[in-house]
Amino acid sequence: MPAELDICLTPDLLHLYDLTGKVVVVVDIFRATSCMVAGLGSGVTEIVPVLTIEECYAYKPMGYVLAGERNGIAIEDFDLGNSPLGFIRPELAGKKIAMTTTNGTKALSLSRAADQVIVGAFLNIQTVIDYLRAAQKDVLLVCAGWRGNVNMEDTLFAGAVAEQLAADLQLESDTVQLSRILYARALAAPSLQAFLEYSKHYQRLVTRDPAVEADLAFNLTLNSYPVLPYLDGERLLLL
Amino acid sequence: MPAELDICLTPDLLHLYDLTGKVVVVVDIFRATSCMVAGLGSGVTEIVPVLTIEECYAYKPMGYVLAGERNGIAIEDFDLGNSPLGFIRPELAGKKIAMTTTNGTKALSLSRAADQVIVGAFLNIQTVIDYLRAAQKDVLLVCAGWRGNVNMEDTLFAGAVAEQLAADLQLESDTVQLSRILYARALAAPSLQAFLEYSKHYQRLVTRDPAVEADLAFNLTLNSYPVLPYLDGERLLLL
Repeated sequence: MPAELDICLTPDLLHLYDLTGKVVVVVDIFRATSCMVAGLGSGVTEIVPVLTIEECYAYKPMGYVLAGERNGIAIEDFDLGNSPLGFIRPELAGKKIAMTTTNGTKALSLSRAADQVIVGAFLNIQTVIDYLRAAQKDVLLVCAGWRGNVNMEDTLFAGAVAEQLAADLQLESDTVQLSRILYARALAAPSLQAFLEYSKHYQRLVTRDPAVEADLAFNLTLNSYPVLPYLDGERLLLL
Repeated sequence: MPAELDICLTPDLLHLYDLTGKVVVVVDIFRATSCMVAGLGSGVTEIVPVLTIEECYAYKPMGYVLAGERNGIAIEDFDLGNSPLGFIRPELAGKKIAMTTTNGTKALSLSRAADQVIVGAFLNIQTVIDYLRAAQKDVLLVCAGWRGNVNMEDTLFAGAVAEQLAADLQLESDTVQLSRILYARALAAPSLQAFLEYSKHYQRLVTRDPAVEADLAFNLTLNSYPVLPYLDGERLLLL
């Protein structure tokens, strides 16, 4: 029997899944996992995701660059917010980052019971798909969502991954089917961005700060960082 | 500002919503709310939804007919299972039913904090839509789901209701948009049944008992029982 792929639509439903022996792919398109992929793909050597702002500060004396947001807003005294464009600056090459975000860090933290935790975004989607196809292990895509609830952009990513792996892995659940239908609908739109412009989170971010639109467009470009971040203890490294 | 409609995709996400002042529509297409609508629409005078089999038994001495299932299987000594065809028998007219089901009863029970709780199914979908359009109150559609997780059939119903009310109520959330996309996809299928045959729950039910296919087809007929069950204290009555 081939390995199975399933999709958890939000961390608040993660209690329904058994992570044992699985590869978990954590997804937070707007914007934590996009930042992680862009940063590690641009020469950052390590990113430590932490749950609280206080934990982040504890990494400062060890030379870490501090990054993060709360409810989409930058944190005072931090070096970086959650714009992926901040994570690709040349001066960060060779640096380590400690990062806290609202949804993405929580999803990563809750996924640690898995055999392996990797980080997915549109920026590395093909690398994620190739890895999962070769691994032939049970996979759970964990969408970070928005404040515990289901969102469009992470579900869309999950649907895109499921669609590409339909010939290689078993796809059984209703959440997989819903996600694939969403992805099929997005393919009929002029672009991912045009499709997601109607999503609540997209509008929330852009209304607060129109400059954010450049970030979101960046996060929706495909495969510009063909790397595979994975959780090694407390830190994300490249595989 | 017009009233708002939102969709909670499973009872396990209900903690994310404030029910105060809202009309909640509980949906469990396969099969609790379909049974309730069919039964009350056929002359049953009252249905009491309870969480446990033991609570159900307590209603027996008071002359209640006992109905329910656990994980889709009938309960020993009970008068009815969860086939809607059982609920429309002429001999049940004028009777009261105590009912326990896996997902639907739980969703009803968790929704009691709302201003009003009504019961929706494809069997009474237009009645539900007309009521919500006239009420102009904030609405939350609560999908019963399957063992805490999101399912296709309840999400589809929610999407259909949202679509019909798009001109009357504010639709903002990503769960509403996802549900509407699912419904739009279903409209392109030859029938609701053809569309849902691919859902996990549908397959699970039919594999266990091919006779169930008649139940499911019945549950997907539109507006055969134009009634509106609502929760009055512990019991469901017709509005």
